[in-house]
Amino acid sequence: GSVMSTSINLAVIPGDGIGQEVVAQGLKVLTAVLPQDVKLETKEYDLGARRWHRTGETLPDAELEALKHHDAILLGAIGDPSVPSGVLERGLLLKLRFAFDHFINLRPSKLFPNTATPLAGRPEIDFVVVREGTEGPYTGNGGSLRTGTPAEVATEVSINTAYGVERVVRDAYERANARPRKKLTLVHKNNVLVYAGHMWKNIFDKVGQEYPEVTTDYLHVDAATIFFVTQPERFDVIVTDNLFGDILTDLAAAVTGGIGLAASGNINPTGSFPSMFEPVHGSAPDIAGTGKADPTATILSVALLLRHLGYEEQAVRIEDAVSADLAERDGTFRSTDAIGDALAARVAG
Amino acid sequence: GSVMSTSINLAVIPGDGIGQEVVAQGLKVLTAVLPQDVKLETKEYDLGARRWHRTGETLPDAELEALKHHDAILLGAIGDPSVPSGVLERGLLLKLRFAFDHFINLRPSKLFPNTATPLAGRPEIDFVVVREGTEGPYTGNGGSLRTGTPAEVATEVSINTAYGVERVVRDAYERANARPRKKLTLVHKNNVLVYAGHMWKNIFDKVGQEYPEVTTDYLHVDAATIFFVTQPERFDVIVTDNLFGDILTDLAAAVTGGIGLAASGNINPTGSFPSMFEPVHGSAPDIAGTGKADPTATILSVALLLRHLGYEEQAVRIEDAVSADLAERDGTFRSTDAIGDALAARVAG
Ligand SMILES: CC(C)[C@H](C(=O)O)[C@@H](O)C(=O)O
Ligand SMILES: CC(C)[C@H](C(=O)O)[C@@H](O)C(=O)O
Repeated sequence: GSVMSTSINLAVIPGDGIGQEVVAQGLKVLTAVLPQDVKLETKEYDLGARRWHRTGETLPDAELEALKHHDAILLGAIGDPSVPSGVLERGLLLKLRFAFDHFINLRPSKLFPNTATPLAGRPEIDFVVVREGTEGPYTGNGGSLRTGTPAEVATEVSINTAYGVERVVRDAYERANARPRKKLTLVHKNNVLVYAGHMWKNIFDKVGQEYPEVTTDYLHVDAATIFFVTQPERFDVIVTDNLFGDILTDLAAAVTGGIGLAASGNINPTGSFPSMFEPVHGSAPDIAGTGKADPTATILSVALLLRHLGYEEQAVRIEDAVSADLAERDGTFRSTDAIGDALAARVAG
Repeated sequence: GSVMSTSINLAVIPGDGIGQEVVAQGLKVLTAVLPQDVKLETKEYDLGARRWHRTGETLPDAELEALKHHDAILLGAIGDPSVPSGVLERGLLLKLRFAFDHFINLRPSKLFPNTATPLAGRPEIDFVVVREGTEGPYTGNGGSLRTGTPAEVATEVSINTAYGVERVVRDAYERANARPRKKLTLVHKNNVLVYAGHMWKNIFDKVGQEYPEVTTDYLHVDAATIFFVTQPERFDVIVTDNLFGDILTDLAAAVTGGIGLAASGNINPTGSFPSMFEPVHGSAPDIAGTGKADPTATILSVALLLRHLGYEEQAVRIEDAVSADLAERDGTFRSTDAIGDALAARVAG
C-alpha cells in the first residue's frame, strides 16, 4: 500500500471490444469519487487488436517505458477473434504483468445481495483469491519440435521459485490476518505436480509459522472446484498458482453473478512499477457497441486501484455504491452508460 | 471395444478407505448382472496405503506384470493422509495409467432425475469428458533444484505429442459422432499455453475434417468452468488434456450430484493392456467403515467396464437400474451395502 498522494497520473489502456465502453465508465466514477484537490491526469495508450492490425505491434519498448512512469494502469479488455490466439495475450497483457512484476493477482469474489447466482440456496460468498502472477505455467517457457508434423512434440514448462512463491504466500497471509475470519487455503495439485506442489506446500507451512492466528487449509485444485459450488462459504483467502488461479477465479466469478462483476488487480506491492487494474472479463466483441456491457467489474477494479494508491475511503465508497446499486436492480435493462451514471451519482453523493 | 467373451478374468484393487466397501458392491452388481454362462474370475491385489506402510512398495514389477494378464481392472480408491502426498498417486495410480497406456480417461456426467445438484433450475446435464490420460503435466517430468532453500527452483513439464493428442481427439470425434447431438468441444488454454494449445487446436481441426457431421467448438479452460455452472446443457462431448480434464471432471461431478455418482474408465482401446475402471472419488478415510459411502460411482464404473468388454446390454441394465434407483431415493439414509443390494436386485430382475 502506498501513501495517498495529491495527484494521480493514470495510464489508460481501453483495449478492444467492450474495453473502451467499460473504461469510460470507470473513469467517470473515478472522477466523481476523487476529492476536489486531487489532480487526476490520464493518458490513453492505443494498444490491442486495432493497433496490431495497423502496425503489427503489441507493446513497443517505447510505450512499455512510458507506462512505467504512471502511478497505475487501468485496462479494459484485450483480444479479438481476428487476432491469432496468444498474440495479444502473450505480447501485451502478460508482457505487462511480467515486465511490471505483478506478482499479486488479486481477485475478490463476493456474492452481492440481489445478484443472480447459478447456485441454489444462495450461499454466502465473500472470499479473495491471491493468484500468483509472474510464474507457473505462464512463463512462456516451452516449445514445439517438428511443428505441424505427426511427430510434433510440444512442451509447456511451469517454473516456480521459492522467491516467487514466498512473496505471494506472505502477501496472502497478511491479507488473511487482516480479515475477521483469518482463514487461508492453499490450492495446488501436490499429489501429481510433486515438485512445484511440494515447494508451494513447504513454503506455505513455513511462512504460516509467522501467522499463528491464521487457520490454514490445503486443497487439491480439483477438489477446490467442488467446494466452489457446494460450499463456497468455507473460503476466506485462497492463495494459488497462476494457472489454477486463472481457472478458479472465472469459476468464482460465475458463482457470484458473472464476470460482469468480477474485478482484479495486478499488483506489484513494492511500488517499483505501476500496478494494473482490470475487469476479469474479456473484450466480448459480440456485444461491443450495443451498450449491454456491465461496467461494474471495471468500476470495482477502480476501487482496488484507489485502495492500492492509498485512497481507502474512496475505494469503500465505490464498493458500497455498487452494493447499493445492485440491491436496487430489478432486472430492467440499463445500458453501460446508465450504470456508470448511477454509480457516479452515488459515489459523489 | 472388444468382443463379448464367455469369461472375465478381473483384477480387483480395492485400495484404501472406502475403496474396499464400494468395490464389494461393484462386484455384487457385476455378479448379478452377468449371464449365467459367463465365468467371472476375480483376483484381488493388495495395493495401496496399508501395503506401502507394511513393505514400502507401491507397485512392484511382479504385480504390474501379473496385472497385464487380466481382461480388466476394477479399482476402488487409493490414498491415505498417513502417506506423503504423491507417493501412491504417482507410484501406483498414475503408474498403472501410464504403464497400461490408458490414453482415454472417460468420464460421463449426467444429472439423473431426482438427484440433488447445487445448481438452481436443474439444467439438463448429459455430457462426457474424454480426458487425455498419458501426457500433459502428468508425465512426472520436472524437478527441483536447491530443494528446501530460499533459492529453490521447481519445474513441471507438460509434454504433449501429436501422436498422443491425435489418438484421443479421434476417439472423442468417434464418440461425438455416435451421439444424437454430435457436438464436440475442445477445452485448452491456447492463448497462454501457446505451444501445446496450438498443437491441440490444429490437430482438433485437422481430424475434424473427417467428421463433417460433428459440430465443433473451442473454449479456454477458465471459460469452460463458467459454462459448467451457467449452461452445462451446452456440452455433449468434451476433449481435453490430462490436467484440465482432472479439474473439469470434479466440477462436473459436483454439478451432477456429487462424486458419489461419478464413474470413470481408464481405457486403452487397442486392447494391448487391460483397461481400468474406478470411481472419480477418493478414499474418503473420514467415512471409511461407517457404511456412508455411496457405491453408485463404482457400480457405474462397472457398467463402463462391461461396455468396454462388449457387454453393452448388461452395461445399459446397470445404468437403467441406477437411474430408477435414484428416481426413488427419498433422502432416507441407505448404507453402502443396502444401495448395492438394491442395485443388484434391480439388474438381476
Ligand atoms: C486473457 C488471459 C491471458 C488471462 C489469463 O489467463 O490470465 C485472463 O484469462 C485472465 O484471467 O486475466
Ligand atoms: C488422485 C489423482 C492422482 C487423480 C488425478 O489427478 O488424476 C484423481 O484426482 C482423479 O481424477 O482420478
